[in-house]
Amino acid sequence: MSQDLVALQAVAQKLRIHSLRSTAEAGSGHPTSCLSAAELMAAVFFGTMRFDPHDPSNPTNDRFVLSKGHAAPVLYASLAEAGALPVEQLMDLRKISSDLEGHPTPRIPWVGAATGSLGQGLSVGVGMALNAKYIDRLDYRVYVLLGDGEVAEGGVWEAAAMASHYGLDNLIGIIDVNGIGQSQRTMFEFDVDAYRQRFAAFGWQTFVVDGHNIEDILTALSEAEQVSDRPVMLVARTYKGKGVSFLEDKDGMHGKPLKKGEQLDRALQEVQVPGNGTPPPIRRPAALSETRPSVTPSPMPAPSYDIGEKIATRAAYGTALAKLGEVQPLVVALDGDTKNSTFAERFVEAHPERYFESYIAEQNMVGAAVGLAACGKIPFVSTFAAFLTRAFDHIRMAAISGVAINYAGSHCGVSIGEDGPSQMGLEDLAMMRAIPHSTVLYPSDAVSAERLVTAAAELSGTTYIRTSRPATPVLYANTEAFPVGGSKIVRSSDRDQLTVVAAGVTLHEALSAADTLQAAGINIRVLDAYSVKPLDAEGIISAARDTHNTLVVVEDHYYDGGLGDAVLNAVATHGIQVHKLAVTEVPRSGKSAELLDAFGISAGRIVERVKSLVG
Amino acid sequence: MSQDLVALQAVAQKLRIHSLRSTAEAGSGHPTSCLSAAELMAAVFFGTMRFDPHDPSNPTNDRFVLSKGHAAPVLYASLAEAGALPVEQLMDLRKISSDLEGHPTPRIPWVGAATGSLGQGLSVGVGMALNAKYIDRLDYRVYVLLGDGEVAEGGVWEAAAMASHYGLDNLIGIIDVNGIGQSQRTMFEFDVDAYRQRFAAFGWQTFVVDGHNIEDILTALSEAEQVSDRPVMLVARTYKGKGVSFLEDKDGMHGKPLKKGEQLDRALQEVQVPGNGTPPPIRRPAALSETRPSVTPSPMPAPSYDIGEKIATRAAYGTALAKLGEVQPLVVALDGDTKNSTFAERFVEAHPERYFESYIAEQNMVGAAVGLAACGKIPFVSTFAAFLTRAFDHIRMAAISGVAINYAGSHCGVSIGEDGPSQMGLEDLAMMRAIPHSTVLYPSDAVSAERLVTAAAELSGTTYIRTSRPATPVLYANTEAFPVGGSKIVRSSDRDQLTVVAAGVTLHEALSAADTLQAAGINIRVLDAYSVKPLDAEGIISAARDTHNTLVVVEDHYYDGGLGDAVLNAVATHGIQVHKLAVTEVPRSGKSAELLDAFGISAGRIVERVKSLVG
Repeated sequence: MSQDLVALQAVAQKLRIHSLRSTAEAGSGHPTSCLSAAELMAAVFFGTMRFDPHDPSNPTNDRFVLSKGHAAPVLYASLAEAGALPVEQLMDLRKISSDLEGHPTPRIPWVGAATGSLGQGLSVGVGMALNAKYIDRLDYRVYVLLGDGEVAEGGVWEAAAMASHYGLDNLIGIIDVNGIGQSQRTMFEFDVDAYRQRFAAFGWQTFVVDGHNIEDILTALSEAEQVSDRPVMLVARTYKGKGVSFLEDKDGMHGKPLKKGEQLDRALQEVQVPGNGTPPPIRRPAALSETRPSVTPSPMPAPSYDIGEKIATRAAYGTALAKLGEVQPLVVALDGDTKNSTFAERFVEAHPERYFESYIAEQNMVGAAVGLAACGKIPFVSTFAAFLTRAFDHIRMAAISGVAINYAGSHCGVSIGEDGPSQMGLEDLAMMRAIPHSTVLYPSDAVSAERLVTAAAELSGTTYIRTSRPATPVLYANTEAFPVGGSKIVRSSDRDQLTVVAAGVTLHEALSAADTLQAAGINIRVLDAYSVKPLDAEGIISAARDTHNTLVVVEDHYYDGGLGDAVLNAVATHGIQVHKLAVTEVPRSGKSAELLDAFGISAGRIVERVKSLVG
Repeated sequence: MSQDLVALQAVAQKLRIHSLRSTAEAGSGHPTSCLSAAELMAAVFFGTMRFDPHDPSNPTNDRFVLSKGHAAPVLYASLAEAGALPVEQLMDLRKISSDLEGHPTPRIPWVGAATGSLGQGLSVGVGMALNAKYIDRLDYRVYVLLGDGEVAEGGVWEAAAMASHYGLDNLIGIIDVNGIGQSQRTMFEFDVDAYRQRFAAFGWQTFVVDGHNIEDILTALSEAEQVSDRPVMLVARTYKGKGVSFLEDKDGMHGKPLKKGEQLDRALQEVQVPGNGTPPPIRRPAALSETRPSVTPSPMPAPSYDIGEKIATRAAYGTALAKLGEVQPLVVALDGDTKNSTFAERFVEAHPERYFESYIAEQNMVGAAVGLAACGKIPFVSTFAAFLTRAFDHIRMAAISGVAINYAGSHCGVSIGEDGPSQMGLEDLAMMRAIPHSTVLYPSDAVSAERLVTAAAELSGTTYIRTSRPATPVLYANTEAFPVGGSKIVRSSDRDQLTVVAAGVTLHEALSAADTLQAAGINIRVLDAYSVKPLDAEGIISAARDTHNTLVVVEDHYYDGGLGDAVLNAVATHGIQVHKLAVTEVPRSGKSAELLDAFGISAGRIVERVKSLVG
């Protein structure tokens, strides 16, 4: 045992050396945040975790999430010492040519999800643990290393609540309590009991350890393996900059690399590696008890609606999701206590074992979905479109992770009516369009809603489906196809004066306007831009060219960042005039039809604008 | 005492009646969520809170925040019974013509901040309590009524931590534990001890009460007034729908109004009002010990830089904020443990008594700022631009509240370099532009940064200042004015081939490109779009007209939603060609200059694009 302790301490020292050297070489990074975690990392990677360092995709590998992502160098060093990546690569830290970025990203196969925005890693770990325990039913554990400062993040407490509620005894968190944040001491400094009490109150089994005593850490981690029915949190008392006397527990050293040369050498001299330097063998992962055949999805049944039947797109979303769950076993769903409104409840009824109620905690819902996606599942995450803004930072980080993840935001726009603006999604298109290579889909009827849900399941990256509250008539035949990046002309003649581009509820308003205008002798073309991103630029430009180079874009969304801006981008260099109708004020409560009119996007307002343009 | 109890119970019954009738009249709303809170509201408004129902702006009024905003009808009913608004108005609930919206907004003077997105009200209360205790030093308390489901929101725990850390013994929360959420039972159902333990672990004094026993509630609220040095949380066991037998503790009744006629009548028959119906007198607010003269800000000193001096706009922000604090006593600042990076630390040094360290908890930081704004303060909230996305829902709700609030996001764009994408603000312009009537400012140098901070302090609504990490040369004279909605031509000749529109770091890249192009015989105009919103449409169109109707917009931001889209909107109907250079991929770590180039927005890439356009 004591020989192993020496060997593990040697690893810790090597991790210190690598962290100091790589950040000094890079000229940036957070060595002191790495130094506080060296024994913890050594104990976890070389004394506890069961994994095959030569096979990152082994399904029974224990998982590790570095929630305190700025300590990336110590993660890379651990992987290198384990033989999972070449030691020489460590000195390429933060170079544009290197996969070893300033904060970990899945360019490295060992990193399931990108971290660096604090307070998100525990949610990712929750997702991975949910997968192991409830979906794949595999015997692996998930270890999450958190900083102490980041425990102030509400997302950590959302994750903590979900983890204990779901009895995630395969989830082990460790807080590196070094007492120093970025700009000052943390709220609790070295009061480890403050952390312990809080996690205990949230239903976790807690251990307080000396974060620089490997034996202490190993004992706790070993006891953690015996805990059943609840997650475990180790609260580790550490010192930032530990191991180098002029860094240890010093203020103002966060995020400061040492200078190559004298300063670095002086530090390295203090970091002696005991023993003969051979790292202990890494524990092997559990054997797979049976081979798991890869799953091939079956074809998705077509929608089955009657044209004219009134169905809300949110309801069609629910129907589609349940059907999708039938044919694609990798689909999982999460919802934030809105499933009766988003209609995710239809998936819950059909596939309860693949649904994770996330309660009113959207950040963790998205983070857990990222963890599930990192384990190969296809998540559909739903809530009101407005409440997806609660999770924008997690959505942003999910995109950096590059995982395939689907979001459904219901109750978009003023058309929800009397509940008022706090419940209205009015900036969600802007939020989702901003994500590079995202797909943003906005069905106007039940048929297209089902088709787009089907499409979403096969897309990579971030996909967003915007659904509406009101029931609207089915416009399309069940056999209609809706390619991503396409659009549909739903009204046209050979003497259209302009084209109205719309989606969702405003598409129906536009059709109504077209009727009114036609009766007044004015024909307009109407285009359903169900694919907001990628937009059917070609189709829209073609329609514009056919109709006096004039477009009117109508959307149930704020004025900046939505469908109108997508159209502006498409026609930016084509000399086409674009007139936007959108919501320009913070709205208010009222009947749906009144609000559409008051905020400028009803059929009547479209008619007014068209008449003013065609003279 | 017992007569008062009868009178208070009578109030509770009236609150039930109003809630049932007003939601039935509206045909929508959440009566069962109101019914569970009737005794709590009666006890708080008529037995505890000290306020003048005829003077909402009395500075010593106790404050009330309805965090469970969907129970708005019971708040309106309480205000009506107190004489603060006409009882007849209650039946206008949710009408487009009424200030009594579905969820409370400050259209009603008694509502400091809009609620309805759950889990935000406690933060607003924290801000109000901070104001009372540390800024205005007034003897008022802040009461916040929360739902149980919303306690899952991480923002609640951020607020809880801040409240105990700052010793907010003037903050009293009440959780209405009715066990039922929106779509199902809550995580803890009636386990009131689960809530109690958690708030106790977070440093609150806790009381468990029978939420339908007024004497029990009053006793706890009275004891709460004796607690010093920590906030107080009442955990109240209640029944959703209490008071009507066919609603009480029934699943599936969330958000369901009763039907006028038989169903409503049947319910009302069960709600008997005891006694003679006279509400007890409301406690008077504390007298103001001294009159507080209104403050007149002094003039802000001008910037004092030398042209060419290299200063990061984030540093100039800090300098400006400190100076502003000197001349405008209403300015307060909050930062999320990034003050050494955002340079809010300069304000902290100069005015520590007006700064609230918010730790790594951005949601609560914004919510508390809203609370401070509701108390007449001028908040400046800072963190990395990327981390403002963590608080998008709070930013959204702040806009619905209509408060004047200023955000500063530093470390925008790929130009931050090696830290990598998790730290880069690349979607913040999209987020902030979406807010109706927001002001979005993006200074390129220290002089404009200081001028725009000065301007921000006087603007209403949401204002966002985007600052950069790298030091850049001062471009402008200290006397230069930067009107909101303006722009600056920083390079021009009488034979410019096109105009490059840029801001921040890319403005400097554009100037460098202009030098290179000039040497190659190609002149370009360069425009500093420091006011992204409102954009200087006239100035930009004029420049375009002068330069072959061709614009190149370059921004350190993702492709969709930023400066380029702002320009597209401005020129949408003017036949001007707009070419956008922006970040089209999730970036990576690397040196700042390498990243600008790799992601298409460096001087070299601008030169390339210009050459390709002018042929």
